[in-house]
Amino acid sequence: MHDHLHLARNHLERLNADAILLTSLSDIQWVCGFTGSNGLLIILPDEAIFLTDGRYEIQSRNEVRSARIVMGGYDLFAYAAENDLLSGCRRAVFQSDEFTVASFESLGNQFGEVEWIGATELLVKEVASKSNEEVDRIRAAQRLTESVFDAMLDWVRPGLSEKEIAAEITYLHLKLGARKMSFEPVVASGTNSALPHAEPTDRIVQKGDVLLLDFGCFLDGYASDMTRTVAVGEPCTEVRDVYEVVVEAQQTALASARSGMLAPDLDAAARTVIEDAGFGSYFSHSLGHGIGLRIHEWPRVSYSVEYALPDRAVITIEPGIYLPDRFGIRIEDMVQLHPEGAENLTAAPKELIVL
Amino acid sequence: MHDHLHLARNHLERLNADAILLTSLSDIQWVCGFTGSNGLLIILPDEAIFLTDGRYEIQSRNEVRSARIVMGGYDLFAYAAENDLLSGCRRAVFQSDEFTVASFESLGNQFGEVEWIGATELLVKEVASKSNEEVDRIRAAQRLTESVFDAMLDWVRPGLSEKEIAAEITYLHLKLGARKMSFEPVVASGTNSALPHAEPTDRIVQKGDVLLLDFGCFLDGYASDMTRTVAVGEPCTEVRDVYEVVVEAQQTALASARSGMLAPDLDAAARTVIEDAGFGSYFSHSLGHGIGLRIHEWPRVSYSVEYALPDRAVITIEPGIYLPDRFGIRIEDMVQLHPEGAENLTAAPKELIVL
Repeated sequence: MHDHLHLARNHLERLNADAILLTSLSDIQWVCGFTGSNGLLIILPDEAIFLTDGRYEIQSRNEVRSARIVMGGYDLFAYAAENDLLSGCRRAVFQSDEFTVASFESLGNQFGEVEWIGATELLVKEVASKSNEEVDRIRAAQRLTESVFDAMLDWVRPGLSEKEIAAEITYLHLKLGARKMSFEPVVASGTNSALPHAEPTDRIVQKGDVLLLDFGCFLDGYASDMTRTVAVGEPCTEVRDVYEVVVEAQQTALASARSGMLAPDLDAAARTVIEDAGFGSYFSHSLGHGIGLRIHEWPRVSYSVEYALPDRAVITIEPGIYLPDRFGIRIEDMVQLHPEGAENLTAAPKELIVL
Repeated sequence: MHDHLHLARNHLERLNADAILLTSLSDIQWVCGFTGSNGLLIILPDEAIFLTDGRYEIQSRNEVRSARIVMGGYDLFAYAAENDLLSGCRRAVFQSDEFTVASFESLGNQFGEVEWIGATELLVKEVASKSNEEVDRIRAAQRLTESVFDAMLDWVRPGLSEKEIAAEITYLHLKLGARKMSFEPVVASGTNSALPHAEPTDRIVQKGDVLLLDFGCFLDGYASDMTRTVAVGEPCTEVRDVYEVVVEAQQTALASARSGMLAPDLDAAARTVIEDAGFGSYFSHSLGHGIGLRIHEWPRVSYSVEYALPDRAVITIEPGIYLPDRFGIRIEDMVQLHPEGAENLTAAPKELIVL
């Protein structure tokens, strides 16, 4: 935590500023440990001030490190202005990609003489680089998710609806101690599996279905995320063929992933395999995303970005092929990137499971 | 839906503009029915254009009414600019309280000659005024939540942890068909009940505990929200006394609530009862909030706002008293406001239940 404050404070010098207003709750959590839903962190050259409201008085005293805690009211900016918490500041940084235009306008009115510097992606590189302790937490969340996956192979059968399966997945995670799901589980059967972001429906799983399962949880602050696609009853040849293409695309990406490489090059490693098999137009999303305190963090692993992948980042690698009105296959692991390659944080098997 | 587009379009004339860019997903849902996670609605004088990405092609064709559907890419604004969807527009409205400073800057760069008008709370009054059909959906979500509450009275017992109870609450909602919870359930026992926004912990519920339960779900697009506080084993006199003060405060607010009254006056109706009983400093939040497509909508029912409550709005009324390190009591119903009074949408009993 102390290191994180130090890393954040480095931006003061870089941006020639004398204050940073941190408003992203996950960035605030990363810097000082607060996990509630209303907070503001003011980083000054010689101190850090954390503001929250009365609902979080006890919680903030239990959680917040490296910052002085101040109880504000409902509007933390108004409180900071009235109490002159930026006194003497000439240039202050705000997170322009986490802050609405309307909030910024009110900011300008409240802190009369401060010059505001908008910064996008202010801490994304620092947040992306995960410590061993952070990776341990991600791994623990993933182990929990895998134990749910293991268990469900025993009870997922034709006759259950997608919604019923999703309810059980959520319940098992919570019973095993997850704080919450990292997103609503995707349980997509039959033709629904061809929709990359399907929501669970009342559709009853049938023999012969492809069943696409994408879920994860938050445990101890960090997220897990995994996709496996299984067959309910013996699948047809085409399902097996497409499954093999997705596995090969994913393995190719896993083998080539390393920090320092360009994100689009990693996307291309998987995409080329799918294109060469003739399914290029059916891989309709990017390869993956950063994950940690948020389910979706920087970097995006996409053909449309231009940056290199940072060292120690944890990302998902999740190629898919979606054949409209027929079926879809996606396989997703989480890995941590190092200069010499990627460490896979996901242990669940990838052979096609036939239930 | 058609009416909603009409109501949104009225702002074109009011703001002397020839386009509205709607970016709030719940506002987009309200106007055209789309429930996915990436969308942009452009409202022009003679048509409406809905943009989403390829993941939502089928879903948008099933859901979207009153608008032409266009498949854009990952960046819908860039797509709109490249395809000249604002051609001929001089003044365009954007939602400045739903739009980041960084997004706005890129907007300015992409649509060279358009003058942008920032609007806050653009559709909040229209969205707040609920049709009978919308209220039916809220009531259905609330009936589901109440059936979970009824059922849990049979199985909540000393020896279960807060987290276990929260897991069961979530599971029962999902099993009964809820799409998701409207927020993570609050299950706060003993001294934890004195934290208005407690998260479920591993604390084991004990005989003699106060148990504060606050939960709701989304069903068919609309949210429910209810709080009940029960006693586990016979409570002490002070718990009964404080409970009666909260009931009286809530009943007083319910009896005085009507559309057209000032929001702070409704807050004061409950707060005065609590102050007169000597607990004024222990009611540390505002009285309630609007609810509908979002769990928290405009209006806030607070002492710190100045507006009147709109006709047909659905709001929560949820006074509470929180005695630090001892216990907390909150009781929450949802009501729809009419000129002659409030219709209570919550049917669960309010006598102190002793488990």
